[in-house]
Amino acid sequence: MTIIQSEILKNWIANVFETCGFSAQNAQLSAQVLVDADLRGIDSHGVARLSGYIRLIRNGRINPTPNFIVTHRKKTMIHVDADGAIGLLSAPFAMNLAIEATAEYGSGWAGISNSNHFGIAAYHAMMALEKDFIGFAMTNASPLVTPAGGKQRMLGTNPICVAIPTQNEIPFVLDMATAAAANGKLEIAERNNNPIPEGWAIANNGEPTTDAKALKNSGILLPLGSTKNGGYHKGYGLGSWVDIFSGVLTGANFGPWVPPFVSFLDPIPNQPGKGIGHFVGCWDIDGFQDKETTKKNMDLWIQTFKNTVSIDIENPVLIPGEIEHNLSNERLIRGIPLVNAVCKDIESLTSELQIKSPL
Amino acid sequence: MTIIQSEILKNWIANVFETCGFSAQNAQLSAQVLVDADLRGIDSHGVARLSGYIRLIRNGRINPTPNFIVTHRKKTMIHVDADGAIGLLSAPFAMNLAIEATAEYGSGWAGISNSNHFGIAAYHAMMALEKDFIGFAMTNASPLVTPAGGKQRMLGTNPICVAIPTQNEIPFVLDMATAAAANGKLEIAERNNNPIPEGWAIANNGEPTTDAKALKNSGILLPLGSTKNGGYHKGYGLGSWVDIFSGVLTGANFGPWVPPFVSFLDPIPNQPGKGIGHFVGCWDIDGFQDKETTKKNMDLWIQTFKNTVSIDIENPVLIPGEIEHNLSNERLIRGIPLVNAVCKDIESLTSELQIKSPL
Repeated sequence: MTIIQSEILKNWIANVFETCGFSAQNAQLSAQVLVDADLRGIDSHGVARLSGYIRLIRNGRINPTPNFIVTHRKKTMIHVDADGAIGLLSAPFAMNLAIEATAEYGSGWAGISNSNHFGIAAYHAMMALEKDFIGFAMTNASPLVTPAGGKQRMLGTNPICVAIPTQNEIPFVLDMATAAAANGKLEIAERNNNPIPEGWAIANNGEPTTDAKALKNSGILLPLGSTKNGGYHKGYGLGSWVDIFSGVLTGANFGPWVPPFVSFLDPIPNQPGKGIGHFVGCWDIDGFQDKETTKKNMDLWIQTFKNTVSIDIENPVLIPGEIEHNLSNERLIRGIPLVNAVCKDIESLTSELQIKSPL
Repeated sequence: MTIIQSEILKNWIANVFETCGFSAQNAQLSAQVLVDADLRGIDSHGVARLSGYIRLIRNGRINPTPNFIVTHRKKTMIHVDADGAIGLLSAPFAMNLAIEATAEYGSGWAGISNSNHFGIAAYHAMMALEKDFIGFAMTNASPLVTPAGGKQRMLGTNPICVAIPTQNEIPFVLDMATAAAANGKLEIAERNNNPIPEGWAIANNGEPTTDAKALKNSGILLPLGSTKNGGYHKGYGLGSWVDIFSGVLTGANFGPWVPPFVSFLDPIPNQPGKGIGHFVGCWDIDGFQDKETTKKNMDLWIQTFKNTVSIDIENPVLIPGEIEHNLSNERLIRGIPLVNAVCKDIESLTSELQIKSPL
């Protein structure tokens, strides 16, 4: 385990992207989105992703110099063709358009096609908070999750993020995969040589499994709810919603056609759409009643829920986004911990690109 | 068990509402929303609710002659004070405003305060389908569900509904409670003298329970995900989102303050808002790309997901809303089955109000 200061990590990531053809500005923004993931403790979506992105740039599946085009617009509804960009860039571009529309109309939405990996949904949704808007973000992803009752990879872990402003309390930030557990959790179990709980995955014959390598052994993730009794048709429904909004509505791919994030797997042929799709947008809280009342009541909501009687007195009830908020503050000061595999990745990218090491 | 034709049931319900002071038009609409629930197989939200509504009208908690007022508006964001109406009426009123805004701006949203029970969310969301819009509906409800890690009733079963139009396939209609199981499922288990599965409820000491009477014995429902490993912080996050949109944003009550639906329980004092709240709205699928492409791809999405390899060859994978769609078609022809308790309710309302019996 190595600890690195976030500024140093960010500058190094920006250097990597710039060396691979990104403009200085795009390199900075992409680096910021990745470092924010590491700060918030979503380590699977931070610098750990970088070497994979670089391979996709090299084999032509991520365009390092994209030209975003608004292809269609109906006032609050804006469609962006991302020209093969990484989602780290296309989503903030589109979110800014949605924010402008919201300032004018009270709400605004952007659908993005022809894009690539999104990074953390929370980054994009939280852009709205600066304007006291509610931010919303979703993306589809390469298929790993089965529909309820199925035994086939049809949906990504398809996250939904909702970020809601407050007065003095920390913002409400729900950022959740619609699978019972995202693949990052299986990787952690595998690294620690632990089995995974029942309810996260099935083997490809449909039988329950506790194998942390289930995905590597052609297993399949389960939707949130895990079982019929647990209501996994709901997790399937939520993941489907995300897939349809991100893929079908935008003209991107959907379901089994969503292209893989790894360079060693090719997209399947006869795709119905272009690249990966995202859906982002905002609501203006000022649209329903005066903003101060809403923000004051958000504070009351948060205080009230934090005071829920908890089962374990040592473990108080948390607000969505609270862990990430606190971790981010802590890591900004103490630095970001990097596991050895990520440090190795950093070293090899550093030497390949002949840039200065951050470690 | 008695079978009744939906038209006969609807006319009788409308007669009940009209006898209790509703206008003829409002009585018809309220009856339609309830019968739609029974047709779709959401029996807990159909005519079974009627006697409870009538008690709330009688004790002054539902206003039979409401005057809906748009109190605040920012183009696509519309706030409606429902004047103590039943949600069966306030939600369609607000949804029509959202549909008009969507026709003009590409999307439209209505927040409703000072309202009462919503009926099925699907009725309101599906209003958008007639215009080829995507419909969205959520409502908060009296607290029965604990936050993750808690042992206190803080959230309702707070449903989310998304209805998406198609070309030739049945529409996609996700209509889900954000609890692991809604209270109707516990009632069915109790009626059949069955225990409930682990993961639906806890006793008020926080211990898991399989008691179908858990709620009557001061137990608490669990959020979707059921356990820490199962990701119940996600169900809690979704339920919270619904509560905040329905209550905090609109100036209605939220969390523990949401008033009970039953007349024998009084609302708790010092409420921060007015009545129950709802949030409804639409997106125009035409905003991102031409509508025909989206509808054609929705058909492809549905066909593709129906063809998922299923675990049990006899049980194919279903599309959200498919069961309800098929049941609705069947019950339109064969009639609606009513359990004995509901028939008794119908008989006693009929004799109390001195109207013609439908049975």
